[in-house]
Order: sequence, then C-alpha cells, then structure tokens
Amino acid sequence: MNSLSNWTVSAQQHVEYRVEIVDGVFDRDNLALVDGEAGARRLIVTDAVIDDLYGDRIRAWAEANLSEHRLLVLPHGETNKSWDSVDTVLETIDSFKLDRRREPVIAVGGGVLTDIVGFACSIYRRNTPFIRVPTTLIGLVDASVGVKTGVNFRAGKNKIGTYFAASRSLLDTSFLASLNDRHVSNGLAEILKIALIKDSVLFELLAGHGAAALASRFQAQTSQERAIIGHAIAGMLEELEPNLWEHKLERLVDYGHTFSPTIEMRALPELLHGEAVCLDMALTTAISLNRGHMMTSQARRIFAVMKSLGLPTEHPAMELGALANALEDTTRHRGGLQRLPLPYGIGSATFANDVTTSEIAEALETIKALSPENAKVAA
Amino acid sequence: MNSLSNWTVSAQQHVEYRVEIVDGVFDRDNLALVDGEAGARRLIVTDAVIDDLYGDRIRAWAEANLSEHRLLVLPHGETNKSWDSVDTVLETIDSFKLDRRREPVIAVGGGVLTDIVGFACSIYRRNTPFIRVPTTLIGLVDASVGVKTGVNFRAGKNKIGTYFAASRSLLDTSFLASLNDRHVSNGLAEILKIALIKDSVLFELLAGHGAAALASRFQAQTSQERAIIGHAIAGMLEELEPNLWEHKLERLVDYGHTFSPTIEMRALPELLHGEAVCLDMALTTAISLNRGHMMTSQARRIFAVMKSLGLPTEHPAMELGALANALEDTTRHRGGLQRLPLPYGIGSATFANDVTTSEIAEALETIKALSPENAKVAA
Ligand SMILES: NC(=O)c1ccc[n+]([C@@H]2O[C@H](COP(=O)([O-])OP(=O)(O)OC[C@H]3O[C@@H](n4cnc5c(N)ncnc54)[C@H](O)[C@@H]3O)[C@@H](O)[C@H]2O)c1
Ligand SMILES: NC(=O)c1ccc[n+]([C@@H]2O[C@H](COP(=O)([O-])OP(=O)(O)OC[C@H]3O[C@@H](n4cnc5c(N)ncnc54)[C@H](O)[C@@H]3O)[C@@H](O)[C@H]2O)c1
Repeated sequence: MNSLSNWTVSAQQHVEYRVEIVDGVFDRDNLALVDGEAGARRLIVTDAVIDDLYGDRIRAWAEANLSEHRLLVLPHGETNKSWDSVDTVLETIDSFKLDRRREPVIAVGGGVLTDIVGFACSIYRRNTPFIRVPTTLIGLVDASVGVKTGVNFRAGKNKIGTYFAASRSLLDTSFLASLNDRHVSNGLAEILKIALIKDSVLFELLAGHGAAALASRFQAQTSQERAIIGHAIAGMLEELEPNLWEHKLERLVDYGHTFSPTIEMRALPELLHGEAVCLDMALTTAISLNRGHMMTSQARRIFAVMKSLGLPTEHPAMELGALANALEDTTRHRGGLQRLPLPYGIGSATFANDVTTSEIAEALETIKALSPENAKVAA
Repeated sequence: MNSLSNWTVSAQQHVEYRVEIVDGVFDRDNLALVDGEAGARRLIVTDAVIDDLYGDRIRAWAEANLSEHRLLVLPHGETNKSWDSVDTVLETIDSFKLDRRREPVIAVGGGVLTDIVGFACSIYRRNTPFIRVPTTLIGLVDASVGVKTGVNFRAGKNKIGTYFAASRSLLDTSFLASLNDRHVSNGLAEILKIALIKDSVLFELLAGHGAAALASRFQAQTSQERAIIGHAIAGMLEELEPNLWEHKLERLVDYGHTFSPTIEMRALPELLHGEAVCLDMALTTAISLNRGHMMTSQARRIFAVMKSLGLPTEHPAMELGALANALEDTTRHRGGLQRLPLPYGIGSATFANDVTTSEIAEALETIKALSPENAKVAA
C-alpha cells in the first residue's frame, strides 16, 4: 500500500505503569517516592487543603530527602479544575527548569489535583513523567489507577484532557484519616460499583465491614479494610487494562455513570459525584430486578449496603424526564447504542440496549419499595 | 507481580493513519475529504492568509458537498501559535456540537495551523479525529506526515503539545502555487535534509531538478517534481514510523536541528526555520568533511545544491560561542549525549558524541572555502 503517493503508517505504543500500596509515603526516612535515591530535585504539586493538613510533613520530608524542591500549592476544588490551573503547573515546571528525563513531577491530592497535574505533564514537551500520591478515597481506588487526565472546559466536565499514565501511583491510606464522612462515602460508591458488576467477594466485604471502614476512615488497619481497597483496585484495573484508551464502548466501569452526570448536574452543588453514582446504581438495580436479572432479596441487600455506606438511594433530582434525556445523551456518546451496564445478580453484569422510558418510570416506583425504611414498613 | 497491594499495568496502543497525495482536494466534485460520502457535517479550520486565497473555493466545495459546515478562520503566523488559538478551536468544536465519532475536523493550512488544530483535537474529549490538508511545502513533507502537535508556551517553541496522528493527511500540491519563493526554499531545506542523511537518489533529483521545482513552485507537473515530494515523504515516514513517540533519542531526522534552534532564535525574525536548518547542515557538512566522512567534491556539490535551492550557507548568527552553547543545550535534551547526526558521504549518516568546540571553529572556516562564490575564487 506504500508507493510514492500513498502511505499507511502503523505503530504500537507500549504503556506500562505501577500502582503500589505504600505506608507512610512522607515518613521522613521513606524513599519510596524517589525510588530509594535521596538527593534528587523534585517539583511537588498539591492543593491548599492538603497543604494545610500535610504541608509541614511534606516539606520536612522534602528537606530531608531532596537536594532541591519546589512545592506548588494550587487552589482546591472542582471549580479550579480549569485550564488556568494547568497553565500554572506548566509555568512552574518551566521556571523550575525541570529535567524531564530524570525528575518526575509529584502530584499529591484528590482526583481534581491529580487530573490537573497529569494533564499538564502529558502536554509539557509532549510527555513529562509524573507520580501520583492520592489523598482521597476516590483518588485511591479510581482517579489514581487509570490513565485519564483532564480539566473542565466552559460548562463541560473533564471536556479537555489526555490519556496519560503516571509512571507510578503510590497509595498511602493514612491520608484518609482527615477526610470527612461524605468524602469517604463518595469513594465507597465507586468501590460498591466494582462489587456489583464483578466481585461478589468485595460485596460481602462491604456488607460485613463497609460501615466500620467508613467509621474508622480506613484507619483501623484490619485485613478487611485492606481487602476492600485491594479488591476495588484490582477489579478496576482488570477492567481498565484491556481498554485503556476506551476504544471499546461497552465498558463495565461505566456502570453508575449513565444517569449520574445528569443527576449530578441537576443537584449541583448538593450531591457529590459518588452520591450521584449511587443514585444511578439504585435505579439500575431496580431496572435489573424488574427485568428478572436479580432476586428481590438481592436488591434489598444492595439497598441496605448503600444505606450503611452513607449513600443515598432517592433524590428529588431523579425525575423521569431528566432521566430519559440522560439515557439519550449517553447513547449518543456511546456510538448510538445504550450499552447500559445492568447488574446481574450480585457481582456480575450484562449490557442492555433497549431500556424504555416506561421501564425507568417503573424502576422509580420500585426504588421506593426497596429503600430500607420503606422495606420495614412493607414487611 | 499483581497481588492485592502492587500492580503493574501494561498495554499496547495501536496507531494507524494514512498520508495520500490527492489532486484538487477542493475541486467541487472531489469527495476524497469525506471518504466519498456527500452530505456530512464538518468543521473546517484554516488561517486568514489561506482564507484570502482559497476561502471562496473551500466554501463552494463545502456548500456543494456538506449538509452543514462551519469555517473557522484563525489569525495566521507563528506568533499566533499559542494556547489562545487552541482555546478558540476547542470553543468552536464545542459550539458546533461536533459528533466526534463521525465528524473529523478538517485542518487546512501550513505547519502552524495543523499543529494548533491537531493539539486541540487531541485533547477535546481526549481524542477527536482530524484530517490535515497542508498548504505549504513544510506542511506537505514534514508537519503533515508525523504525529506531533503543539503550540508555543511563553518563550518556548512547541513547548506544549501531544503525539496525536491525524487520521488522514491529504496532500494537494496545487496549494504551493501561491507560496512565495522563500517559503518554497524553506520546505526544500527539509527535503534536502532527507536527501543528505538517507537518499542519494533524492539528492540527485534535487541537484538536477530542484531549482526548476523552486521556480515553478512544483506546478510543472513533471515526474521529477512528483518524485522529489514522494521521496521526501517516504524517507521521512521511514524514519518516523519505528519511533513515533521519540523514545529513541538517536534520530536521523534531527539532522539539521542541533544548531538551528539557536541560530533561528538569534536571527529572529530574519531567518525562516528551513534557512536555519540549512545553516546547520552547512556546518555539519563541513564537520563531516574535516573528519574525512566525505570528499571535498561531495561537500562542494552539497553547497552548490543549497545555493540552487535558494538557501543560505553563511550567516552572522553563526558565531562560535553560540554554536558551542547550542550543542551543549541539545546534548541535555538528548539524554546527556550529543547524538549528533553527521552526513557520511551523500545519502547516508552517522552519529557523533565527541564534537569539540575547536572542530566547530574549524568548520566555520571550511564553510567559507566551500561556498560556491569563494570556491570559484579559490579555483
Ligand atoms: N482520572 C480519572 O480516571 C478520574 C476518576 C474518578 C474521578 N476523577 C476526578 O476526580 C475528581 C473527584 O475526586 P476527589 O473526590 O478526590 O476530589 P478532590 O480532589 O476535589 O478532593 C475532594 C476534597 O477533599 C480535599 N482533600 C483531599 N485530600 C484530603 C485529605 N486527605 N483530607 C481532607 N481533605 C482532603 C480536597 O482539597 C477537596 O476539597 C473529579 O474531578 C473527577 O472528575 C478522575
Ligand atoms: N508537527 C510537526 O511535525 C512539524 C514539522 C515541521 C514543522 N512544524 C511546524 O510548522 C511551522 C512551520 O510550518 P509552515 O512553514 O507551513 O508555517 P505556516 O503555517 O506559518 O505557513 C507559513 C506562511 O504561509 C502562509 N501560507 C500557508 N499556505 C499558503 C499558501 N498555499 N499560499 C500562500 N501562503 C500560504 C501562512 O498563512 C503563513 O503566513 C512551525 O510552527 C513548526 O514548528 C511542525
């Protein structure tokens, strides 16, 4: 097919990265972040909330173990997830005269922070390695394990970004100690997602130990807490690895993410992302139940676990018209088919392309009957 | 290596794209740009100079063959190669409500324009396909055949960008009719680069027919003109394809690009990129001659061809201190080794890591003796 007027270029890019659970990343004598070698130069980026809580600790570690460093502190929160923040990171990489072959940028923060820094690194000289240190539960089990980076653009959530792997993600659960309950629940929603679509063992762990993990903020150091996080990451990676660039449109990890963008937007800023995901999972659990994809007892257990994890199953934003539009919207983005992941029993899933508006209406009724408080009344 | 606390993710991304020579891309009945299917929606992006020259033609084609289109006209020139232009493209993609699975963006322009649009497309929803229609000789043989996108950031040339292949590049040489001589010479410098490092046939084509191609702006439709462009692209792709992401630091296509960034910057805006590249090639030809890598007769032919293509071999910006610094700078970016491509005879090359400042000084003297005018005096 190659001549002097017509060429086809074909190549393979190999991508490899590590995700590691590490205790005490910023303990003074811990050199995991610098691969065992003290005396390096590093740029560290974090947000203002984390700087307040852990800044002294990070600085002490840097002073003890680096020959030179700069700590860039970005404003925190979703509203600062914008090009301006990316620009600030780029500017700082530039003025720090970072040697990108030897000096990976270190990003310490939640999903907002690691998404911003990852985006900046991916485009600075078209590729500047970075390392993620997630500090939220969403970060630990979701934002810091895949390869998506990005920021919001105009009204569009994560509308600009790249696929770019951090060379390493170092997961240190001790950061969760300072997270408030709602942000822990927020992360538990993504863990429950993995449980429902593919891991019945993880579901049992959540059913038996999720509430305790929420109460202790994963600081009780039990084998169950470790297993919940380990299973969640393993399950997530199993789904992501064969489809890193999302060429395949049928993605189990889209479970809970069909109706939730609309619910989240309608209820902004009241609902956190994971809460909206849980509402979506409640709805789709009800659809599955009505389709005969699970037993009533299973659906009731799912709803009870949601409750025990501090997650909502009902909300005024769950309005039929909006939900029907959400399904249409998603269908457009999934190449014209619904490709809607639906739980099949607990711990496995199936895809549907034929969910109707009347089914959604019926599911909204089912949700009411399944909610633990109503269940008691009905029993 | 995968357990519940330590994972290695490994994946391969397959990239494939086409580069095709096509006549009359915007002829009213030519459907090459839309894969033979009339009636599509398309966003077309170009610059103000091209809009002046070809806007009517592009609009007539779009009106005849598309169901709906928007023509975005960006300001032209290197000073507009900035994030602001990327932002404008993103904004327009967004407001056009582009369906990225079906509606590739069409970029019509020189290297500046296609680099901007490519960057915007690569980050919009992390991947929005685009098609390149180069309108300059640099575009035809260089900017539109590889996978690099990007814009300038602060003082840094192409400092932010991505590796992102256009799904297709449609090369229509008729655009060159309106290019001025210097911009044709500018492109010929990159063609000469390929000739010197790897294609003696291309060198003979340039020696025999380069001056005529420059005079006709490649509009004479001779087999030699077609062969010059065909060989240049084939050679470029042969070098790029096995190293699309530039993991290998020894790159023949870096020939002419070691000293030229510094020369270009010192002489801005007087020198075009290709002119600076030619000065670099003159210097490295002299170094090769002095190392015994080529015969004096070969070096003289190279200088004569440079001259015949309207390219410079001497310039006041070629100052010893600056050139020595340039080599140091490049060495830093090439992982600590010079990896300096040097011509070996005509049509092949070798890499050097030990070029000294006194060798550069000597080469500057050699250049004087090799210049065609001086050669005559010396003869
Ligand atoms: N890239 C991906 O694959 C991916 C996956 C999931 C989510 N995300 C993104 O992640 C974001 C949500 O993640 P998030 O919930 O971590 O958001 P976040 O980064 O905004 O963190 C939530 C809040 O907690 C604060 N915080 C962070 N660590 C803390 C700690 N240890 N103690 C106390 N407070 C702390 C932050 O400052 C912030 O105010 C969204 O923007 C989402 O798009 C990305
Ligand atoms: N991506 C890559 O791999 C790659 C490779 C080489 C160069 N580049 C980039 O390309 C740029 C240089 O390319 P260029 O020389 O095409 O620059 P350019 O796009 O600025 O074009 C040069 C000038 O010619 C005008 N022009 C374009 N087509 C014309 C036509 N048919 N007739 C008359 N005028 C026309 C343009 O408006 C501009 O003023 C640089 O920014 C360089 O970094 C990129």
